[in-house]
Amino acid sequence: MIQVTYRFPASVDAAKQAQVIAIGQTVGTWGTSFSHREQQLRSHLAEVVEVVAQPDGSSLARIAFPAANTEGDIGSLLTMIFGKYSLSGPARVVDVKLPNDYGTRPKFGSQGLCQRTQIFDRPLVMAIFKPALGLTAADHAALLREVALAGLDLIKDDEILGNLPGCPTLERVRACRAVIDEVKHTNGREILYAVNVTGRADKLNGFARQLVQEGANALLFNVLSYGYSSLEALAADPELNVPIFAHPALSGALGGPSDGSGDYGIDYSVTLGTLMRHAGADAVLYPAHYGSLPFSAATEFRIRDILRSEAGRPALMPVPSAGVNANVVPRILQDYGNDVVLNAGSAIFDHPQGPAEGVRAMFEAMHRAGYG
Amino acid sequence: MIQVTYRFPASVDAAKQAQVIAIGQTVGTWGTSFSHREQQLRSHLAEVVEVVAQPDGSSLARIAFPAANTEGDIGSLLTMIFGKYSLSGPARVVDVKLPNDYGTRPKFGSQGLCQRTQIFDRPLVMAIFKPALGLTAADHAALLREVALAGLDLIKDDEILGNLPGCPTLERVRACRAVIDEVKHTNGREILYAVNVTGRADKLNGFARQLVQEGANALLFNVLSYGYSSLEALAADPELNVPIFAHPALSGALGGPSDGSGDYGIDYSVTLGTLMRHAGADAVLYPAHYGSLPFSAATEFRIRDILRSEAGRPALMPVPSAGVNANVVPRILQDYGNDVVLNAGSAIFDHPQGPAEGVRAMFEAMHRAGYG
Repeated sequence: MIQVTYRFPASVDAAKQAQVIAIGQTVGTWGTSFSHREQQLRSHLAEVVEVVAQPDGSSLARIAFPAANTEGDIGSLLTMIFGKYSLSGPARVVDVKLPNDYGTRPKFGSQGLCQRTQIFDRPLVMAIFKPALGLTAADHAALLREVALAGLDLIKDDEILGNLPGCPTLERVRACRAVIDEVKHTNGREILYAVNVTGRADKLNGFARQLVQEGANALLFNVLSYGYSSLEALAADPELNVPIFAHPALSGALGGPSDGSGDYGIDYSVTLGTLMRHAGADAVLYPAHYGSLPFSAATEFRIRDILRSEAGRPALMPVPSAGVNANVVPRILQDYGNDVVLNAGSAIFDHPQGPAEGVRAMFEAMHRAGYG
Repeated sequence: MIQVTYRFPASVDAAKQAQVIAIGQTVGTWGTSFSHREQQLRSHLAEVVEVVAQPDGSSLARIAFPAANTEGDIGSLLTMIFGKYSLSGPARVVDVKLPNDYGTRPKFGSQGLCQRTQIFDRPLVMAIFKPALGLTAADHAALLREVALAGLDLIKDDEILGNLPGCPTLERVRACRAVIDEVKHTNGREILYAVNVTGRADKLNGFARQLVQEGANALLFNVLSYGYSSLEALAADPELNVPIFAHPALSGALGGPSDGSGDYGIDYSVTLGTLMRHAGADAVLYPAHYGSLPFSAATEFRIRDILRSEAGRPALMPVPSAGVNANVVPRILQDYGNDVVLNAGSAIFDHPQGPAEGVRAMFEAMHRAGYG
């Protein structure tokens, strides 16, 4: 059973629209000529569980869909819960409850990521290559050497940086892998580099395999830009034995105002929480309310709690992001504890004393707060 | 050069935010340590072309991005134009202008579809299998025989119907192909059946090939549910020599109110017009304002005109849908002329005198209006 909660504004007859969804997003209506199929047809209908008026005049309608109407993946789920109905006027998907075994399992999750980095007793510290575009593979390698020797745990591409002629992804991986090996030889620690895997759906897994064969030890993926279906493909591939970091790019186009007050779209807790959890991501980036994007604390914590849930699946690693710097580290640690990635872009690469000092500032802030 | 127009509400400093996009969605900022890369970095920056205040207080900002920042596909385009920025507060993508050769070309387009059906001088008439779920492959074949013998041109699955145990897609194709061949033998006409192709990104093309090998002569695809990247993969596959019908399911989650008045998201003219045009769809379904969904006429016609544009690419076939019946056929023909698919679901399969009579009613309405 798949339970979906829709919110309708006060102007909408919520009880009526809930029925429209339960029928229109499943079987539709049928006449007497199908009476021989009555039982089968009925088994595919959704049911309105409850419609509850809210103090502000809006209504929450919970609808139970047969899981058998989908193929057990996110693509068919989205068509069922909000396909045609998304075009039917004001309605917002605010919550989705899936069976524990629905979708694709992560290979690592939060615990697996700690195993990979061999860091169990403190948050992980991550940087983002800056500038985002215009550097060569050798530039990336030089930047990586600096931050890796300063003790960084993870680094990722900017989500903007694809497989471009001036800096092909494969060259970036090769150049950075040499640095990863060199630093590992020096201090015994393998820094993870989440390389941005991009490309057309039918070529994506092949390209990702090539990157991993050439040394990529983590992947970054713009899930909304390419589709959850492609994330599931990466996560299910047995040859891609590396953690996948899911990026929230484009999620605002469905989410609207970050406090979830929009009358349309799909809530961030669903797109960045529930669906990522069931599509195979190991770690999920989303805006931190301490940061540079206007994200609400309540929405951030709802995502965090969904990612961390251990109900029948591995917990995922939360990566609150955007505008994170040493000053906000104490607040993040208060809200997240050990189980978080401290992900800093400009704070590390634009640090006045250089990137290595930027890394040290992040670790110092963490130590001062009593972690690590 | 890729030109994107964003609309900001009156509350936003549009000139400032346009600069934030031009820099933040490309290179970002950089310091003196990258002066040796200055020229390369600058070449990736976007430029604010104009910011124009509107009578209602909103502003339209047009920004020119270097096409070289993308991989020439829709996935990397979405990350660039509205990735992280979609999370930055109220802003809506209202127009995208791409180079003519950007993306994936359709194999058929409007003209190719007419070639396939051998109908050049009138609109095409299409039905949608109803009920959507719960019938067997044999039920589908029986329904198809009835409407095909009544003279129907095209039929499609409901977008809800995936590859389900009670009615596997391959069985549906086999059963319906037998009917298609039988009817062709009777009257010489091959009805096209757009079968709903579903599934994980890495398996999608293989499954689609199997369907085509077993007789599928058209495909239906829920583009937004699976990702434009997967549509591009289908459209680019030389072994899939059949027209692709793109379904608008889920587009409302990004589009919001159909008059385009929302402060967030991506306009329907982009998601169902421009992006479909550059992702390889041959025909595109979208709500008709005459129909059962609350769609604005202006938005519908903007989509129609983008799909029909012949600027450097084949025109696509418009399929205004949802609640289309014989009564609205004259209005559709007035607005579209010959070059349209008349797509009726309930009007055919729930016709009081049965589906064959439903087909005849659609053709009669077309004839009375002076077409065909």
